[in-house]
Amino acid sequence: MNSVAIGIDIGGTNTVLGIVDINGLIYESCIIKTQKHNLFEEYMAEIFDIIDSWRLKYLDKKIIGVGIGAPNGSIVTACIESAANLKWTGKLEIVKLIEDRFGFPCILTNDANAATIGEMVFGGAKNFKDFVLITIGTGLGSGIVCNGELLYGHDGFAGEFGHIIVDHNGRECGCGRKGCLETYVSASGIKRTAFELLAYSNKETVLREYSYQDLSSKIVCQAAIDGDYIALKVFEKTAEILGKSLANLIAITSPQAIFLYGGIAKSGDLLLNPLKQYVDLYCLSNFKGKCELKFSDLDGNIAVLGAASLILKSC
Amino acid sequence: MNSVAIGIDIGGTNTVLGIVDINGLIYESCIIKTQKHNLFEEYMAEIFDIIDSWRLKYLDKKIIGVGIGAPNGSIVTACIESAANLKWTGKLEIVKLIEDRFGFPCILTNDANAATIGEMVFGGAKNFKDFVLITIGTGLGSGIVCNGELLYGHDGFAGEFGHIIVDHNGRECGCGRKGCLETYVSASGIKRTAFELLAYSNKETVLREYSYQDLSSKIVCQAAIDGDYIALKVFEKTAEILGKSLANLIAITSPQAIFLYGGIAKSGDLLLNPLKQYVDLYCLSNFKGKCELKFSDLDGNIAVLGAASLILKSC
Repeated sequence: MNSVAIGIDIGGTNTVLGIVDINGLIYESCIIKTQKHNLFEEYMAEIFDIIDSWRLKYLDKKIIGVGIGAPNGSIVTACIESAANLKWTGKLEIVKLIEDRFGFPCILTNDANAATIGEMVFGGAKNFKDFVLITIGTGLGSGIVCNGELLYGHDGFAGEFGHIIVDHNGRECGCGRKGCLETYVSASGIKRTAFELLAYSNKETVLREYSYQDLSSKIVCQAAIDGDYIALKVFEKTAEILGKSLANLIAITSPQAIFLYGGIAKSGDLLLNPLKQYVDLYCLSNFKGKCELKFSDLDGNIAVLGAASLILKSC
Repeated sequence: MNSVAIGIDIGGTNTVLGIVDINGLIYESCIIKTQKHNLFEEYMAEIFDIIDSWRLKYLDKKIIGVGIGAPNGSIVTACIESAANLKWTGKLEIVKLIEDRFGFPCILTNDANAATIGEMVFGGAKNFKDFVLITIGTGLGSGIVCNGELLYGHDGFAGEFGHIIVDHNGRECGCGRKGCLETYVSASGIKRTAFELLAYSNKETVLREYSYQDLSSKIVCQAAIDGDYIALKVFEKTAEILGKSLANLIAITSPQAIFLYGGIAKSGDLLLNPLKQYVDLYCLSNFKGKCELKFSDLDGNIAVLGAASLILKSC
C-alpha cells in the first residue's frame, strides 16, 4: 500500500492541507481560512473533518502521519506558542490533539522551517548544505540550513528573522515590540511603507485612491508594474531594508544561497533587482558576490510538501 | 608516545602558541606580538622557530599537527583572507606554509571559532548542543554552535557577528564600512564610546586626563570600578548596543547559552549585569529568560586549546 503523509501549512491568513507521497506528488489539497474561527477547538474540528474525509477517500493509501508548519510552532515542545499572526493565545497543543484523535504520529515545526524543508527535499536547494529560505507573506519567516541540517536552536524556535529589530524607534509590531523586520518587509509592511511615502511625497500616484483598509501589497505591486513612481519607491525601500538585514544574516551564517518565497515572489524583479544591489552594497567584502539570491521556483505548496516531509523522510 | 598538538591563537595584538595533549594539558605556551613584523614571512619565521624549539625539547611526545585560530581564517580555503585587524593583506596561505615546512597536518579556522571549540571541548559548553561564544578583544568575533556542530557556512566564514552593521551612519570600521558592531563593542569601541561621552557630557571624570592614544579599555574599566560616572556610562552603553544585537542573534539561532570571552571579561559585572537587562528587554517574548549569559570560565588559553582540538579531536 502506498504510504502518504498529510502536510498542513498554517499561515496567518490561509491554512493549506495536502495529502502527499514520498515523491512529492500531492494527491489533493485544500485551503481553509485560518482566522475564521474564534476558538482554536473549532478550527481544529474543521481540520479533523478534512482528514477524516481523506481517510475515507484514500482507502488504498496508508496515511502514516501528519506534518505541520505553523507560526511559532516548536519541534521541541510540539506546541504553537504566542504566535503574533494567530488570534489564539497561549500554548496550543496541536500535536497532542491530532495524535489523540487519529493515533498516527504528528510532527510540528515553524511554518518557515516547513517551507525550508520543502525547498531542501523537493526544490532548488536539493544540493545545498548551507542556505536560507525567507518567506514573505502576512509576516516574514525564515528557515536556516547549516551543515545540511535545519537550525532549530535549543528550543526549536530559531529562525525568527522576521523579529530581528532593525529600528528600535520603528513601527509597532504584533509581537509587542517596535521596529521588527517584518513590520517593513511583509505584505502589511509594503502597505505601511506606501502610506509613509504618501505622507512624505507630493508625487501623483494611483495609491492615493485607496484607504489603508483597502490598499494591499498586490495593488502596490500592480502599480509598480505600471510604472507608478511611489509604488516603485516602495519596492526599492523594501529591498533596501531587507538587503541590509540579509547582509547581516550573511555575516552570521554565510549561506550559499538565499531563497525568497511567498506572495511577494509575484513582484519578481521589482524586488529582486534592487535587493541584489543592496545586499552587495552592504555585505562585508569577503562575502560579496558569493551568496546567490533568488525566488523559490516551487509553487504555493512548498510548505505543505515540507510539512509532509517531516513525516515522509522518517519512514 | 604521548600525542600532542600545537595550538596557535592569532589575535590582532598577540599571538599565543601552546603545546597541548588530549586532556587539555598545556605543556608550554608562549606569546609573541602579532604586529611586530611588517612582512608576513618574518612573522611566520618567528612561529617556525618556536615550533622547531618545541620539537627538540619534547622529543618524548609525538607532535601530530598544528591547529590555528586566526581572524578571517577559513577552514574551507585554508587561508587567512582580508583580516581587518591584521596588517598583512591578500590571501595568506598559512596552512600550506606550515605543512610544507614541517610535514604534519595543519587545520585553520577563525580565531573565535577556535575559542568556541575550546569552550565546547574543555569549557562550560561541554553539554550544550546550541550555544554562542562572543570574543571581545581588539575586535569582536563569534563562534556559533548549532545541533552540536560549529556553524562554518558554505565558505568557512560564518560567525562574523562583529561585522553586522548596527548603525549605517555609525563609526568607521577597519573593514571599510560604517557602524559594525565591533566599532562599539571591543577594546577600541569602549575607548571610542568614552570619547563620545566626553564630548557630550560636562561631568567630571578622570578620563579627561588621557589622550586618545593613551586611553585604553583597561583604564575605562578601572575608572568604572572606582565609581567614575562617565566610565560607568560607557559600560552601560556598550551593554545596550551588545544587548540589542544579542537579542537579534537569539531570534536567529536560539542558543541555550551565550559565553563572553576576552579581555573584557575582566570588567565582570560592570558589563554583564546591564547586558543581561538589555538582552531581556529587547528579546522577543518567547526567548525571554531562556538563554543563559555568562563569561567563559576558561582562562586566556581557551583559543589555543580550541585550535589544538582541531587536530586532537581527529586523532
